[in-house]
Amino acid sequence: MSVLQIGEKTLQSRLLLGTGKYRTPEEQVEAVEASGTGVLTFAVRRIPLDNAREETFQGLDLARYEMLPNTAGADTAEEALRTARLAREAGLCDMIKVEVIGCSETLLPDPVETIKATRMLVEDGFTVLTYTSDDVVLAKRVQEAGCHAVMPAAAPIGSGLGIVNPYNLKQIIAQAQVPVIVDAGIGTPSHAAQAMEMGADGVLLNSAVAGAGDPEKMAEAMKAAVTAGRLAFESGPIPPRDTAFASSPQTGVSRPS
Amino acid sequence: MSVLQIGEKTLQSRLLLGTGKYRTPEEQVEAVEASGTGVLTFAVRRIPLDNAREETFQGLDLARYEMLPNTAGADTAEEALRTARLAREAGLCDMIKVEVIGCSETLLPDPVETIKATRMLVEDGFTVLTYTSDDVVLAKRVQEAGCHAVMPAAAPIGSGLGIVNPYNLKQIIAQAQVPVIVDAGIGTPSHAAQAMEMGADGVLLNSAVAGAGDPEKMAEAMKAAVTAGRLAFESGPIPPRDTAFASSPQTGVSRPS
Amino acid sequence: MSVLQIGEKTLQSRLLLGTGKYRTPEEQVEAVEASGTGVLTFAVRRIPLDNAREETFQGLDLARYEMLPNTAGADTAEEALRTARLAREAGLCDMIKVEVIGCSETLLPDPVETIKATRMLVEDGFTVLTYTSDDVVLAKRVQEAGCHAVMPAAAPIGSGLGIVNPYNLKQIIAQAQVPVIVDAGIGTPSHAAQAMEMGADGVLLNSAVAGAGDPEKMAEAMKAAVTAGRLAFESGPIPPRDTAFASSPQTGVSRPS
Amino acid sequence: MSVLQIGEKTLQSRLLLGTGKYRTPEEQVEAVEASGTGVLTFAVRRIPLDNAREETFQGLDLARYEMLPNTAGADTAEEALRTARLAREAGLCDMIKVEVIGCSETLLPDPVETIKATRMLVEDGFTVLTYTSDDVVLAKRVQEAGCHAVMPAAAPIGSGLGIVNPYNLKQIIAQAQVPVIVDAGIGTPSHAAQAMEMGADGVLLNSAVAGAGDPEKMAEAMKAAVTAGRLAFESGPIPPRDTAFASSPQTGVSRPS
Repeated sequence: MSVLQIGEKTLQSRLLLGTGKYRTPEEQVEAVEASGTGVLTFAVRRIPLDNAREETFQGLDLARYEMLPNTAGADTAEEALRTARLAREAGLCDMIKVEVIGCSETLLPDPVETIKATRMLVEDGFTVLTYTSDDVVLAKRVQEAGCHAVMPAAAPIGSGLGIVNPYNLKQIIAQAQVPVIVDAGIGTPSHAAQAMEMGADGVLLNSAVAGAGDPEKMAEAMKAAVTAGRLAFESGPIPPRDTAFASSPQTGVSRPS
Repeated sequence: MSVLQIGEKTLQSRLLLGTGKYRTPEEQVEAVEASGTGVLTFAVRRIPLDNAREETFQGLDLARYEMLPNTAGADTAEEALRTARLAREAGLCDMIKVEVIGCSETLLPDPVETIKATRMLVEDGFTVLTYTSDDVVLAKRVQEAGCHAVMPAAAPIGSGLGIVNPYNLKQIIAQAQVPVIVDAGIGTPSHAAQAMEMGADGVLLNSAVAGAGDPEKMAEAMKAAVTAGRLAFESGPIPPRDTAFASSPQTGVSRPS
Repeated sequence: MSVLQIGEKTLQSRLLLGTGKYRTPEEQVEAVEASGTGVLTFAVRRIPLDNAREETFQGLDLARYEMLPNTAGADTAEEALRTARLAREAGLCDMIKVEVIGCSETLLPDPVETIKATRMLVEDGFTVLTYTSDDVVLAKRVQEAGCHAVMPAAAPIGSGLGIVNPYNLKQIIAQAQVPVIVDAGIGTPSHAAQAMEMGADGVLLNSAVAGAGDPEKMAEAMKAAVTAGRLAFESGPIPPRDTAFASSPQTGVSRPS
Repeated sequence: MSVLQIGEKTLQSRLLLGTGKYRTPEEQVEAVEASGTGVLTFAVRRIPLDNAREETFQGLDLARYEMLPNTAGADTAEEALRTARLAREAGLCDMIKVEVIGCSETLLPDPVETIKATRMLVEDGFTVLTYTSDDVVLAKRVQEAGCHAVMPAAAPIGSGLGIVNPYNLKQIIAQAQVPVIVDAGIGTPSHAAQAMEMGADGVLLNSAVAGAGDPEKMAEAMKAAVTAGRLAFESGPIPPRDTAFASSPQTGVSRPS
């Protein structure tokens, strides 16, 4: 299975994992390890920046992970930039996930501020991964603004609905010039596998793992699903057909008489 | 991950794999091994019963697998019985998959003959796995007829459409007294994972693996997907919601001012 | 719009309507009239056969409708026959809807008893409309047993889920030798229209109308939807495409400069 | 059925119809009349502005219709403004449909230019209906920019896929402060009915009618479907349920013994 390259980062795993929603620090450590992820995401605004490493990531060996803070809480491009700089100054990252929400009900992104924030953060030297809706043109515009990966939502954050609009996702992947990481809305391994089968370069998970009854086991499941989907994409699945195509011949050499 | 018990058989893998559709014997061996399956299926009518082991399963160490012949080609319960006995007499099995097709267009089973064949083969001492449509009552009736596992179609054989009617499959699983093996219609790992997430006990694959561009890689993908789906079922996924549920707090301790 | 012929009956409307679930007799009369239906269905077991006309159909001019009693409550073909004969002896009908339920959870039909009941009622001289699941082979077998129309469920009775498995319904319609009336599971006009667009000959409605907030208005809506769907079927819809096909030219004669 | 108010226009029909794609002028006249529409749309760039009325709308009594030209062909807000002014100067309209395409493959709109064009045209005194994707935040932003109606795509123009993302459409409708006209992607009456059942205020059709085998009949079908969907919305449909809810009682007063 090929590796994933985002900007100058080379990632061994195609699964990116959120932090901060687990019931206990122990559950978080177990899930992170079971997932095999190489990238941890978190909201800059959630963590105390002076001692982030101790409290938020308790028990995790951070040397083993790339950190991907997001700008959640920012309503404008300017706020996103300030948030990103805070994280960088705290030594947390040079990667940033642009997340500028435009609707508190769906937590879907604001298109104008998202494009603008992407441009500003790229110019400021960050490796930028931009959270978008599944809007095909928005995904295109953030790439024109220079992002290093585009992160379309499969469905609203935390909804667990899976890929609601496969036509849009297919178009985004077909037109992409940078890696496509499906972000938000994935609820189960079959959703993650489907995204990868369609040719996504990776998935970002948070609620689906942290909110599961057994996060460690679900993290293991998601790891297997991402592998499954990627291998399937690489191996060339059969095309779907409206009706049957016999596996077993209806007549044969040893037909009993 | 718990093991699968069908009648008196204990199976380490929840993936059952068809044979006979590969481009070469080498591809078949590679796919079988990559899948991790413990059960090989084949059509009794396809193979020359006197030297089945050499020609049909060339290169496979049959001692490592349970054999699950099917009665494909039988139009009636009586023909299914004759087919099954031929297989048993050739020393191929004591398990049998009842497959009595009722429609050449969809290859969906005939309900009346399928129920009858199940009853006859159970009485004849076979361990019986019965192929059904996703009809909830048919699945119930074949269990009343004594089958050791019920094998509902996700979609027509070879269609690769995945689980077309999740409501029916959910009901079949909820009402089942024996293992449910989803058979037919699975095209990709996400379909296999979805079946397992819903609580199916296993999946049977054939076209999806044999017809893939790289069958060995697809077999590996399917193995991972079945594992992913089963683990997810055991770990308790988040319930889907119509709208968003924030992963990252919209306000936080270090809000920039 | 062409008329619908079932056995020797010629029906002006392609909408069949259930009775007996309305909040008041007045609501029932209003809904029946707004629907434009020519066929009323009811459960033989629900009505007192000695004075059915007065109590159950209060306010309706029964001379204007064909009556289609159903055998709901019968668990076997023999019970269905007895129920049908009771209805005929009470002068209620010579049409009968075979309904032999096989699962109390889903109210889906028993395949074996349904086929048998169909055969028995046909031989007994009834015009037989048979309720089936969307199982393709079951729909075929009841036609071989002589039914005058086949009535596949779109989804479980009262579920309002619409056409869960369009592949099966498409096959049933393609293979049908008698009219196909989609029965059960329709919740909204769009479901009814979809069934008709696919080529169904009619729809039977009950809960969707009787359970609506305003049954009269919903009956009017359903009447329009059935007409819409039938006209669309007859007029030849555009085939769906995965991506865009321009309505407005992207360049034109009066391009501003 | 209530009337539709857009800006200062009161419309008797909730169906808006495109022009310019019919095989002959006669087909166009027949379809327009059968549809019952009160609003005709067309691309400003398609028609010769000096004698638009004679050539493009041959045979139609334009006094009976509101004209809704669109700005298709414009790549920027500035171009959209110029196009709209041309149409106004030619005496064609005071309503305009903002259409600024951002992707030639999907014909989905450019979010930034669409918002900007909306603002400019509102300031210029037009009654503005804005074509958007089904992006929830984009629909919100064009309303903040002052549009008089928002026109989300169900699916790509001409695709006939119907409402691909009902979650988004539901949110757009729930949050709307102006009428929501579902535009693009509708292929059949059931799609139109579904949009109206969900609470859309109207639908705009073009390819689905003009491209049908019999456009006049399809126009009549669509008229009925829009009525059906609106009546259903007003009458309060039953909520969908995962499993059955008996229409006919399973026991009854006249149970045969």
